[in-house]
Amino acid sequence: MGLPRILTIDFLRRAYRSGTLSPLDVIEAVIGRIAACSDPAVWISRFDDETLRAMARVLGETPSPDMPLWGIPFAVKDNIDVAGLATTAACPAFAYRPTADAAVVARLRAAGALPVGKTNLDQFATGLNGTRSPYGAPRSVFSADHVSGGSSSGSAVAVAAGLVPFSLGTDTAGSGRVPAAFNNLVGVKPTKGMLPTSGVVPACRSLDCVSIFGATAAEADLVRRIAAGPDADDAYSREGTDVALPETGLRVGVPVGVEREFFGDTANADLFEVAIRRTERLGCTIVDIDFAPFREAANLLYAGPWVAERMAAVERFHADHADDMDPHVRAIVEGALGLTAVDAFRGQYALEAFRRKTRATWAAVDVLLLPTTPLFPTVEAMRADPIGLNAKLGRYTNFVNLLDCAGIAVPAGFRADGLPFGVTLIGPAFSDTALALWGDRLHRAAAGGMGLDRDADLATMAVPPGPEVERLPIAVVGAHLSGMPLNVQLTGAGGVLLKKCRTAGDYRLYALPGTVPPKPGLIRAPGFAGPGLEVEVWALPVAAFARFVAEIPPPLGIGRITLEDGDSVPGFLCEAHALQGAQEITPHGGWRAYCASA
Amino acid sequence: MGLPRILTIDFLRRAYRSGTLSPLDVIEAVIGRIAACSDPAVWISRFDDETLRAMARVLGETPSPDMPLWGIPFAVKDNIDVAGLATTAACPAFAYRPTADAAVVARLRAAGALPVGKTNLDQFATGLNGTRSPYGAPRSVFSADHVSGGSSSGSAVAVAAGLVPFSLGTDTAGSGRVPAAFNNLVGVKPTKGMLPTSGVVPACRSLDCVSIFGATAAEADLVRRIAAGPDADDAYSREGTDVALPETGLRVGVPVGVEREFFGDTANADLFEVAIRRTERLGCTIVDIDFAPFREAANLLYAGPWVAERMAAVERFHADHADDMDPHVRAIVEGALGLTAVDAFRGQYALEAFRRKTRATWAAVDVLLLPTTPLFPTVEAMRADPIGLNAKLGRYTNFVNLLDCAGIAVPAGFRADGLPFGVTLIGPAFSDTALALWGDRLHRAAAGGMGLDRDADLATMAVPPGPEVERLPIAVVGAHLSGMPLNVQLTGAGGVLLKKCRTAGDYRLYALPGTVPPKPGLIRAPGFAGPGLEVEVWALPVAAFARFVAEIPPPLGIGRITLEDGDSVPGFLCEAHALQGAQEITPHGGWRAYCASA
Repeated sequence: MGLPRILTIDFLRRAYRSGTLSPLDVIEAVIGRIAACSDPAVWISRFDDETLRAMARVLGETPSPDMPLWGIPFAVKDNIDVAGLATTAACPAFAYRPTADAAVVARLRAAGALPVGKTNLDQFATGLNGTRSPYGAPRSVFSADHVSGGSSSGSAVAVAAGLVPFSLGTDTAGSGRVPAAFNNLVGVKPTKGMLPTSGVVPACRSLDCVSIFGATAAEADLVRRIAAGPDADDAYSREGTDVALPETGLRVGVPVGVEREFFGDTANADLFEVAIRRTERLGCTIVDIDFAPFREAANLLYAGPWVAERMAAVERFHADHADDMDPHVRAIVEGALGLTAVDAFRGQYALEAFRRKTRATWAAVDVLLLPTTPLFPTVEAMRADPIGLNAKLGRYTNFVNLLDCAGIAVPAGFRADGLPFGVTLIGPAFSDTALALWGDRLHRAAAGGMGLDRDADLATMAVPPGPEVERLPIAVVGAHLSGMPLNVQLTGAGGVLLKKCRTAGDYRLYALPGTVPPKPGLIRAPGFAGPGLEVEVWALPVAAFARFVAEIPPPLGIGRITLEDGDSVPGFLCEAHALQGAQEITPHGGWRAYCASA
Repeated sequence: MGLPRILTIDFLRRAYRSGTLSPLDVIEAVIGRIAACSDPAVWISRFDDETLRAMARVLGETPSPDMPLWGIPFAVKDNIDVAGLATTAACPAFAYRPTADAAVVARLRAAGALPVGKTNLDQFATGLNGTRSPYGAPRSVFSADHVSGGSSSGSAVAVAAGLVPFSLGTDTAGSGRVPAAFNNLVGVKPTKGMLPTSGVVPACRSLDCVSIFGATAAEADLVRRIAAGPDADDAYSREGTDVALPETGLRVGVPVGVEREFFGDTANADLFEVAIRRTERLGCTIVDIDFAPFREAANLLYAGPWVAERMAAVERFHADHADDMDPHVRAIVEGALGLTAVDAFRGQYALEAFRRKTRATWAAVDVLLLPTTPLFPTVEAMRADPIGLNAKLGRYTNFVNLLDCAGIAVPAGFRADGLPFGVTLIGPAFSDTALALWGDRLHRAAAGGMGLDRDADLATMAVPPGPEVERLPIAVVGAHLSGMPLNVQLTGAGGVLLKKCRTAGDYRLYALPGTVPPKPGLIRAPGFAGPGLEVEVWALPVAAFARFVAEIPPPLGIGRITLEDGDSVPGFLCEAHALQGAQEITPHGGWRAYCASA
């Protein structure tokens, strides 16, 4: 069976379920693709072919298609521990051999996924460009002259080139988003603390996130949910309740015109305007926002005391091996020298002030829509201006972890020169699930395929689930039916239509005299063999359900209604005394039909 | 009209409402009491008598008894700005004259309260003992030999001595709680960020809270709620939703026996055991907890990088005026010298690790009950060991702001030597309202009066309101009545009984055959003139209401029931078809009476 150019979890799961492929088949294909890949800088190390085959065989002998990632190969950024492979953080002198998987890797393995190897990165995850590594500079899959983005450079290229369906990166300043933009991928930057960082070499411990590159938002978000959850070994691990976003009419903040800075890259500037219009066509409301406090908060990351976190992470190594470090990375880390504890707290105060300033924006918008990066440098340009150009790359990413937001970078079309452009949706902490839904819509609307395959059709691929809101069912029979006068009480309260069907046969329906708007009354009449009455089963968020029920006027109320399929759900019934003198309309089969006939 | 020994908001409001006192009468009494007070170290400055009288007259000319603090005098710790008085932070060389009130003072003035003056404190709010001030050392109102506690020393004494009904303090390490314990008062330490700190001289800006001393929990909590709320000028200002605590069966964590350290003060040790037993008698469940991670987190405050926040607050002043500082305060602040930004972030990491460790405790308990202080030093002992003894005083308070908890210190009885003992309830952030309710219960149960007045009777004073939970009413008629088998479905879901009454006369009740547990069915029968049926109206939290309704089995459901007083509320009705063959029990007047007769 032929494999698609871009491997996806969706394709492999279907193939495994139908028996057309085995994990060993897939691993053989992965081995072949890695060998054929023209970019020599993607991997720092990987399991040898025989080990990979053995892992696939073991998995194949215990088929567990219920495991959500059973037989799915993935790549791991080389600052995340995988037992059996060295962790280098792209610094050979720093390398160590971990005895255990990082918590996220262990969770993905437990879900059936197969780690293939460790990918290249900007040393110590310090950089957004992909050129700061002694293991070479990976390139965008669309141009051998252009950077891959970083710091999670190899992980992005591995997915975009079709070597593996997903990969793990890390993201402190944008390392899980910039490479997504440069390789036509989705990059999920989860809420801080949602995915454990135990077994990950720190960059800035208070900000670091494990991130996921995937072909689609659905796939990257699936991996996020599997890897997420509390971890006793990670002090920054935290739990939160899913924050919902509107499912329609999303309010999308974009930088006000003068703040749309692309440093002269008009191709990107134009594509951002196109992305805004496309977002509007999805029914979103565009809101111009003041981007200044976000941008200014971002300056704290490299121009403020947070570089001391990078020093804290490598202080002992730096003391003995400063000369073994990439010179640019070393210069950044050494920015911590001379910074005092007072400076550190002053930085915290400044950050809190920016957080306060951005609250007005968050009151006016649900998410931000930003260019993932303003420009797309060549490797040559990057090497000519390694610090300045890197800072420009992070213009729209650096603030996100400092201000405790979640983000998802998605493809947003191609420039005339064939290079991709990407945008990022930013939401409040714990809005990840809802962000994935909207990120998926943007990605599909851009119609630029995934990774190297610009023509890939996403239409057949799974959509990520919406945020999990606890809802309770309620069967409506009269003025609350779709299109009827009181239906707005359901839709306005976040109700969703579950199904249209009929009651069991032993119900009778009456037109209640004198009701405004006109309403019917339903009662059960055991033994009666009628046609069953038209009902709609809606689901209301729990609190809305309660308020709705508490407001129902007599003689109506909520009992339990048996449906034609035998299910029973809460639904509208009528007190029997109110039917005296009321016209029975059961033969019409429902309130809608009766109203149409009247 | 005579004033009570301890002034209370409750007394003054009643007197103002009945017209027996005017604000000017009260201010005259306050002036007289201040003049007669034997402790010369309470005030650093205050408005002169004529200014106070003028303020009271202005207020008296615009009677607004609806203003919640109309005509209530209060004292302000002298690190909080009051326009018209200098702010010294107990350091004369640091003094400045603010042009505006601190945000909290402005809010209290807007509510009608009258600031009387500025009270003494440990310099720069650095200390828990009250002896670190050039303005003298206030004493506990119970002993001229013993410290008042600090740093909010004068504010506590002002209330405990009956000079004003409430006062403002600040609390970083325990400064709003320790003096409460030493003066038989309630000290409310609100959730960080709930009360703005703009216009307050910082101690540790990321931890500082404005606190309130009051005679009762109700009064201190009333002031908290008036002063609380977002403030655009305070970057650490934050909003949150009230966190509820169980209204019965509170799980109360206490340090496991070996961690109950009193440094040889057996009187306090004994009173803490008494307080635990008293808490049990209030229906709480006592849970032994591991106090070590709380205690170890507390060490970060003075032995870790947080002293750099104290330096950040006074760095410029310290550069020119170090010799003008209290030597102990100076030594503490200078602990910041040599601390690097790396040290500061390492401190954050350590704190996060302790936060993580304490999560297991918070899963097992609702609140902590701790001694407010382990011991009660004399001024002489304090001066002999100013740093070591201060550290001991903070053993049970220092962790609270670092770990983002709310707290309330309440009186807990008296020792044989006539000195008071206090305990503190600690809850999660934003549990303040619920904490006040439980703190009030503990205070009343201790029966040791308030402030100087050990015999004051709290029984007639207002109880703080419980947390505001949105509930919906539901009338029950059968197995859910109090004492009946399904009543636990209501009590277990946070239900509260609103009233016991009867339905209107036109309802009939039937015993439903074959139901388990046995249940009745209620229907309305317009025109029927019956006795009315016994119902109980309960109120369920919104989500619990929804789940409860969604689970009701047929033929029962929720309609709207008219009560004997004409009110109508959601309540249990029965489908009419189920009453065929059922025995009518209406003449019994209700399900309970029927069951008793059967």
